Amino acid sequence: MTPDATERRVLEAIRERRELVNDALDEDVPMAEPERLYEATRYLLKAGGKRLRPTVSLLTAESLADVEPMSEDYRAFPTLAGDAIDVMVAAVSIEVIQSFTLIHDDIMDDDDLRRGVPAVHKEYDTSTAILAGDTLYAKAFELLTKTGADPADGLEAVRRLATTCTQICEGQALDIEFERRTEVLPDEYLQMVELKTAVLYGTAAAVPAVVMGADDEVVEALYQYGIESGSAFQIQDDVLDLTVPSDQLGKQRGSDLVENKETIISLHARQQGIDVDDLVDAETAEELTEDAVEAAVAELNEAGSIDYAREMAEALTEQAKSRLDVLPDNEARDLLCDIADYLITRGY
Amino acid sequence: MTPDATERRVLEAIRERRELVNDALDEDVPMAEPERLYEATRYLLKAGGKRLRPTVSLLTAESLADVEPMSEDYRAFPTLAGDAIDVMVAAVSIEVIQSFTLIHDDIMDDDDLRRGVPAVHKEYDTSTAILAGDTLYAKAFELLTKTGADPADGLEAVRRLATTCTQICEGQALDIEFERRTEVLPDEYLQMVELKTAVLYGTAAAVPAVVMGADDEVVEALYQYGIESGSAFQIQDDVLDLTVPSDQLGKQRGSDLVENKETIISLHARQQGIDVDDLVDAETAEELTEDAVEAAVAELNEAGSIDYAREMAEALTEQAKSRLDVLPDNEARDLLCDIADYLITRGY
Repeated sequence: MTPDATERRVLEAIRERRELVNDALDEDVPMAEPERLYEATRYLLKAGGKRLRPTVSLLTAESLADVEPMSEDYRAFPTLAGDAIDVMVAAVSIEVIQSFTLIHDDIMDDDDLRRGVPAVHKEYDTSTAILAGDTLYAKAFELLTKTGADPADGLEAVRRLATTCTQICEGQALDIEFERRTEVLPDEYLQMVELKTAVLYGTAAAVPAVVMGADDEVVEALYQYGIESGSAFQIQDDVLDLTVPSDQLGKQRGSDLVENKETIISLHARQQGIDVDDLVDAETAEELTEDAVEAAVAELNEAGSIDYAREMAEALTEQAKSRLDVLPDNEARDLLCDIADYLITRGY
Repeated sequence: MTPDATERRVLEAIRERRELVNDALDEDVPMAEPERLYEATRYLLKAGGKRLRPTVSLLTAESLADVEPMSEDYRAFPTLAGDAIDVMVAAVSIEVIQSFTLIHDDIMDDDDLRRGVPAVHKEYDTSTAILAGDTLYAKAFELLTKTGADPADGLEAVRRLATTCTQICEGQALDIEFERRTEVLPDEYLQMVELKTAVLYGTAAAVPAVVMGADDEVVEALYQYGIESGSAFQIQDDVLDLTVPSDQLGKQRGSDLVENKETIISLHARQQGIDVDDLVDAETAEELTEDAVEAAVAELNEAGSIDYAREMAEALTEQAKSRLDVLPDNEARDLLCDIADYLITRGY
């Protein structure tokens, strides 16, 4: 299938589920008092977002149950034993954790904008943003206790989410540490990406299987699917920053180079002896000319660094897709396959 | 029994368990990588603390199981059905949550010191402190999945802890909101205290009963014991600030008045028409004279505000102790009774 057709199918699958996920977020993280806290808690959730992780969760459930996509009520979804559980609340708990990490990350990075609106600590204040994140954190665990799954499975899902949250913190700490370090190895960078970004994709795919009573082997394969496609997604982000025209990217192409942000590409280039810090001499993204980016990209291409990243993303994606062999052969599985492809073929 | 004898018994019960709790904290929140993150995560836990909440948890378990205090291995503790569970890991999870809330609260309040050492965001930095708190948050939930309890009980314990964390955030948000508001009613203040402080005492007492398989009625009574004695503890703090000599208090007596901190005493006094904001005219705790404090205290006494707080703390404590009737009559229950008394009779 062409990348365009894949993208259309994926965006359609996300679009179909997004409204249901948004309604569920509204029900499961309702307004409460104190008003300002709950407004801040819901602010980023209401600001939008693709809902890619909950879509992965819902598709995993649909493939495992071997039902036609969108044919079952996600709030009373068939487990493998034939009981009915709320698989939507599990999907929502993943999105709520994602939202909590974004709010706290934006404080740490002092980022002004998120999803096109002011970051929570800018719209409110830092204390409120810390508390809003902490509230979402608790909500996510509370929600995950409410699937109605067999209690042993429910407890295992909670344990997995908790371990995942610990790892996300470790990944963010490594990310901060790397900014201060003079040398970072590509493997260390990949470990950081896995912890900071990929484990939550892994958990998004694995948790529905856990609460539906799937075998450990299935759960583990789905977790690896998420880890691998999530890592590929992040590596592809680094490639896109250099290869996609600015107007399509929504920001200056090559901005990672100006900001001296280490990526798998810059780390590979360093290993090839390229003086990455002086690849472009602009101090701000505004100063950066297209010619300067072209010259830098040419040098990185010469060193094989962009291909190195691209091939790594492709290999991870192929591996991720092969993990899906544990699932029944059905439309939902095909869509999970498409999502893995989409994560590295999307244009921006 | 005299207050002194009660205090001795309570401090002895805490002292006996503290080393075991500290060892368990070290085992259950071990060093890991990234090193700086885990050092920050463990920093406040290692800085000390009375371990009052885990002591309450362990005593609740001992009373419920009707065993002699300190006679059983907390890591293989008898449930009501005769199984063996790790009740220590539940106690540790409560202390870990307490530690997380202190780290984040200190960022929000920009407090420099905690337990006699620099606050985590001062010793490290704000980003590391946010992450250290977030890591402890995840650890607490992870630990609570590991009691080995019947899974339904384990899941219920997680649900209770998650709800408690949500409430702690609500309480902290109210505390911040009240500093900005011109009028706060005593009932609103009490609700804030209950959310910010008392619910974690309640959960410290209730969770062991949940994982040991106690009836809902017992769990609920123990929760109320914690709520009421925890609220009394906080109210007593407000009384002590005005009534205990500075050298015994470890800070300037009357400092709440200088800082214009609303307490149940100031809120009652306002309702009696006292101009609380002008009770003392010192701008800093250093400027405050003993005579000025004496005059302010005399006025508050005159209005009945200090007695109002004291009587409220006493009534809450009596109610808390009566909740313990659901427990077998044994030494551990007596100690829980003593702890409730100690929380409002302690000198500082």
